[in-house]
Amino acid sequence: MTDQQLIALLKELTLEEKIAQLLQLAAPFFEGTGTEGQITGPMASMGITEDTIKNTGSVLGLSGAKETIGAQEAHLKKNRLGIPLLVMADIIHGYKTIFPVPLAIGCSWDMEAAEKSAEIAAAEASAAGVHVTFSPMVDLVRDPRWGRVMETTGEDPYLNGEFARAFVRGFQGKDLKNDLTRLAACVKHFAAYGAGEGGRDYNTVDMSERQMREYYLPAYKAALDEGAELVMTAFNTVDGIPAAGNKRLMRDLLRMEWGFDGVVISDWGAVKEMIPHGVAADEAEAACKAILAGVDIEMMTTCYENHLKQLVESGDVAETLIDEAVLRILQLKQKLGLFDNPYRGANIERERELVMSTEHRQAARELAVKSCVLLKNEAVLPLKTTQKIALIGPFARNGDILGPWSWMGSKDEAVQLYDGLKSKVDASLIVAAQGSDIAHMTEEQLEEALEAARDADVIVLALGEHSDMSGEAGSRADIRLPQAQLDLTAKLKTLGKPMVAVLFNGRPLDLHGVYDLADAVLEAWYPGTEGGAAVADLLYGDSNPTGRLTMSFPFAVGQVPVYYNHFNTGRPQGAPDAQVRYVSQYLDIPNEPLYPFGYGLSYTTFAYSKAAISSPSMTMDQPITVTVKVTNTGTRGGEEVVQLYVRDIAGEVVRPVKELKAFHKVSLQPGESRDVTFELKEEQLRYHHSDLSLRSDAGEFTVYVGPNSRDVGQGLSFKLIK
Amino acid sequence: MTDQQLIALLKELTLEEKIAQLLQLAAPFFEGTGTEGQITGPMASMGITEDTIKNTGSVLGLSGAKETIGAQEAHLKKNRLGIPLLVMADIIHGYKTIFPVPLAIGCSWDMEAAEKSAEIAAAEASAAGVHVTFSPMVDLVRDPRWGRVMETTGEDPYLNGEFARAFVRGFQGKDLKNDLTRLAACVKHFAAYGAGEGGRDYNTVDMSERQMREYYLPAYKAALDEGAELVMTAFNTVDGIPAAGNKRLMRDLLRMEWGFDGVVISDWGAVKEMIPHGVAADEAEAACKAILAGVDIEMMTTCYENHLKQLVESGDVAETLIDEAVLRILQLKQKLGLFDNPYRGANIERERELVMSTEHRQAARELAVKSCVLLKNEAVLPLKTTQKIALIGPFARNGDILGPWSWMGSKDEAVQLYDGLKSKVDASLIVAAQGSDIAHMTEEQLEEALEAARDADVIVLALGEHSDMSGEAGSRADIRLPQAQLDLTAKLKTLGKPMVAVLFNGRPLDLHGVYDLADAVLEAWYPGTEGGAAVADLLYGDSNPTGRLTMSFPFAVGQVPVYYNHFNTGRPQGAPDAQVRYVSQYLDIPNEPLYPFGYGLSYTTFAYSKAAISSPSMTMDQPITVTVKVTNTGTRGGEEVVQLYVRDIAGEVVRPVKELKAFHKVSLQPGESRDVTFELKEEQLRYHHSDLSLRSDAGEFTVYVGPNSRDVGQGLSFKLIK
Repeated sequence: MTDQQLIALLKELTLEEKIAQLLQLAAPFFEGTGTEGQITGPMASMGITEDTIKNTGSVLGLSGAKETIGAQEAHLKKNRLGIPLLVMADIIHGYKTIFPVPLAIGCSWDMEAAEKSAEIAAAEASAAGVHVTFSPMVDLVRDPRWGRVMETTGEDPYLNGEFARAFVRGFQGKDLKNDLTRLAACVKHFAAYGAGEGGRDYNTVDMSERQMREYYLPAYKAALDEGAELVMTAFNTVDGIPAAGNKRLMRDLLRMEWGFDGVVISDWGAVKEMIPHGVAADEAEAACKAILAGVDIEMMTTCYENHLKQLVESGDVAETLIDEAVLRILQLKQKLGLFDNPYRGANIERERELVMSTEHRQAARELAVKSCVLLKNEAVLPLKTTQKIALIGPFARNGDILGPWSWMGSKDEAVQLYDGLKSKVDASLIVAAQGSDIAHMTEEQLEEALEAARDADVIVLALGEHSDMSGEAGSRADIRLPQAQLDLTAKLKTLGKPMVAVLFNGRPLDLHGVYDLADAVLEAWYPGTEGGAAVADLLYGDSNPTGRLTMSFPFAVGQVPVYYNHFNTGRPQGAPDAQVRYVSQYLDIPNEPLYPFGYGLSYTTFAYSKAAISSPSMTMDQPITVTVKVTNTGTRGGEEVVQLYVRDIAGEVVRPVKELKAFHKVSLQPGESRDVTFELKEEQLRYHHSDLSLRSDAGEFTVYVGPNSRDVGQGLSFKLIK
Repeated sequence: MTDQQLIALLKELTLEEKIAQLLQLAAPFFEGTGTEGQITGPMASMGITEDTIKNTGSVLGLSGAKETIGAQEAHLKKNRLGIPLLVMADIIHGYKTIFPVPLAIGCSWDMEAAEKSAEIAAAEASAAGVHVTFSPMVDLVRDPRWGRVMETTGEDPYLNGEFARAFVRGFQGKDLKNDLTRLAACVKHFAAYGAGEGGRDYNTVDMSERQMREYYLPAYKAALDEGAELVMTAFNTVDGIPAAGNKRLMRDLLRMEWGFDGVVISDWGAVKEMIPHGVAADEAEAACKAILAGVDIEMMTTCYENHLKQLVESGDVAETLIDEAVLRILQLKQKLGLFDNPYRGANIERERELVMSTEHRQAARELAVKSCVLLKNEAVLPLKTTQKIALIGPFARNGDILGPWSWMGSKDEAVQLYDGLKSKVDASLIVAAQGSDIAHMTEEQLEEALEAARDADVIVLALGEHSDMSGEAGSRADIRLPQAQLDLTAKLKTLGKPMVAVLFNGRPLDLHGVYDLADAVLEAWYPGTEGGAAVADLLYGDSNPTGRLTMSFPFAVGQVPVYYNHFNTGRPQGAPDAQVRYVSQYLDIPNEPLYPFGYGLSYTTFAYSKAAISSPSMTMDQPITVTVKVTNTGTRGGEEVVQLYVRDIAGEVVRPVKELKAFHKVSLQPGESRDVTFELKEEQLRYHHSDLSLRSDAGEFTVYVGPNSRDVGQGLSFKLIK
């Protein structure tokens, strides 16, 4: 259909039909889904009638070729004008072939691999009849207490933006309408959902608009620049007003200033949640604020459905606002080709072929290998295939390694670490013992573990968090491993054997009690379907670790928030003239995180030459280049993530001590050297001034090149001349 | 002098002389101070010449009648036009008679007593020749990691404002010029110094302007409305710009919008600190930004002294700006009567009489009694005078109970807890043992403590933080008592004896390991010179505790920030329709603090009737009244702090779940009842809207009355009709 035809269709709709297009309901409301009628809990009290359902615009949480085809068939029979249902679902890090959680993908610093993971997720999900994924989630995070950090790519605005683009490319491809293996992407959660106070999910967010524009907004913008079709509102307030009713944020900034003309959808229940938030007295006021703010689709509550008609009749809401919202939804359906082919990619046979295919699993394994971060290694890794291994811990034989937001993934089909190790060596060399549950240890478990360990050459400890301990609403005030696992670690330490800790978890942890006792620590995150195989690849050195942290690991929870791109303060610790006491510090712990942003080890070592700069001054149209020679000084081939950071010495507002501006991954054989050259341009030096303008200032800058945000030496000075 | 004469004097000054008036140096730079020439460390490298010193406008950290008279005499001899020195000092919670730390004074909820403490501090300090105190500090705080929480009155904007006024009244009196027993007050730290990220002192502050105006600014404004003569800038950034160079904050808001025409002084070194902050490339730029922002006096750095002249000559700074600053300083000297009597209150004899007088010590004891908060009491307090007491812990016999910012106070003259108890009963009934140091415990100490306890009827544990563990630059990431003291507590618990913990500390602590083991907990803070006597009064029931917390005690550091006037979120815990998981909560701890704002026990009990409201609706000019009958249901006379909270059900922006709007202290004999009536007016319902306007909205409110911010029941509804 042309836009004209869509407008004509819009005109045929009654007001009730239009309003129902703005409603999104879960699968159980719809005939043919296989779950129809399973309406319990809050859903049962929504008062949804058959009349509403037949006019409803979209469904969420529905997938499976059979089910989506069934639902669409049933819907088209009932919908007066034959407007197809839009099928949306949370395809976050894979559909059935589960990739590492996004925070782990972030640690790959590999945009191609990230794009590929989204492409595969889209291929599987689209064959299963899904049209739109609620992804990517690009919320910048600085608080590991928040459970949903696992769903982001970390604390850096630049890197998050690059990943946002990669995911959007992977999901949407180049031709959404004709490439039926793709999904429309919905960037979320607009805006600043990652900054909830106290790391408590859904909690209040408050920051200056300048801070929001400088750090939090760029990744959403990057996703939109890459063409993401939808935007989801955040649960939190932005300057006192919940995002779903925040006209300044959604209409003035997103639609007017950024020119976004796609579909805006609320998060689950977020329109009605304006009532408990305390900015709407009732559902009618919530509906009014949301539509005025520019929310097109209301997910899972019925403020629009039950009140918009009256609000139009009373003149509180112009019908044109509803028309615009409906038109955007129809346009999205049109972009997805649903008017021509309402089943789109749904195909039972293709679904069977694609889902969990060997190729997909292989890609998941490769990305998992790239996502693990080696935090410590005192000459114990890689393991030798002759060593006798005691594999101990609650994740020794445990498929709960897919992580949150992997609803269609099957833990039973995940490769457990035990099986991964066993595939590498003779089974007799691997003895497994649980040691403890996630949060409890019995005497028997401990005894069995000690027994297994006594005979071993090396202990591999498989520790971590239950997947419910992170993810949505998974905030923790204590970010250490559960005490039982720390006790297990301490007990095993008494044996005096080499000990390797492999961690399966969804957030940066306070690793005291682990990193100090283990000889090696591999952060495996939730590595997905092929997790055990990937970790085994790394532990035995068939692959060499390349992952680098994209979120700081705090020294203690009392240090939070700790992030690399902080400000210097007026009394920085460690300054040449600093007093002993009167500096910005804690009395009891360092200011620095335990492991900094960008950090990760390899089985080889890399040496950096002193960097060279092409010119001491940059102009508006004359970039500079920075070159460093990186040498593999070890005995294995390996890959280094060479990172470039910039500091603006004096700004109109305070500027971070370092900001990542670029990075290169270089693969080097033992003894091999490579010149790594970065170009640095004026536009990379821009920041938001106190008047919110984005521009650079003439003056002095320092550029640093190194293996992580900490180990970058003195840096080189240059001037921007304007 | 008249203003005209001051202007004439100003005209006689050379530019150099004017600029030197803007400089403030420490006492050792000045002849006659008794510390002259003791210039070491950073001071030695400031390059201050004799020529500068003779023209310098003010001195800080100087006191003592002899010393101030000596310094003034010497200065007047050298200063060409005989402009007297202004003497400033940190008189925070007493001069030599030390009152409880301000956070403790806050817990008294007693404005008269707070005012009295400031009046006494002023009387002592003014006799010692001080003219200006760097007090009150009214920074709102929500993060107990910050060491300087001890210097504020807590987390509530209304209560902080009331205390700000009380302190200003106490310091300044009604006639600053003629009442030589008073000091000019300097409200600090403008603005929002209490909101440093991570609770780390001097760290970045970032919040929306609306949030700042609603919560952080009111207490500064209250102090200025009460007539505070000076304002000190904060060390932190405000929206990216350090306060000392923040034109929008200091000139646009403070001077233009609020009309403040008094002296603005930087905090120690804060002008030069714009360089490490990264908003000034050098001292000249720092000077330029500070004078443009409206800072009159530069404390302890010489950006003005070394660069202002050139900035005037280059035209970067108008000389009128300097003239205005100098005139404000001269006007302050005139307000203090220094042109007529440059020695003002300095009087060696009066100093000897007043300082640490019996009357002053008695006032300190009374306020200390009012400042202690009884957190728990399982029928063990008050102690009986027949009981044998084992007094154990590092604060058993320890004069380090004055707290930070008591520089002229003498620990040796503080009443230790041991001496306080001994004054109540026969000395043979009190056995004291140290048990542990602040952070270490030896076997011998433990043995001695156990031995002492074995014979006792009751163990009184005197625990706490060393005074260096809070105060400026005293941030802690772990806010429990040091492990040694927790170990001591656990060991003593094994004896099975009644155990009372008395806590000496400067911040809300995570009390796990204490409150759960002790039968009673008395939070004594740093109670000051008469601390041991006051605590003994309470422990033996000669006084009945009336203190109520003005800052929440967190359940764990991982819960920070936790404060009573938070927002509800869209998914509040405990709502009738709340899901089990998808609510705003931590998985591992409650959302609620261990002890809430407003909380504190008495040796008697109070019952509240259901509150009654005079009308279900309020209008703009028709207040309502809320009445509750409070009954002393126990067997001792006691005082209750009856607290009134309001919730705005639906605002234009989100509103707190509760806001303290009023309170009454009522003293009741056993069995006595009293109707407590509050008037509530429209202006108390105003808040800052998204356009920053301060106004109320028509609509529904709930009013609560109760003994603390938690235990207030269902509340009563009323409507504001406009």
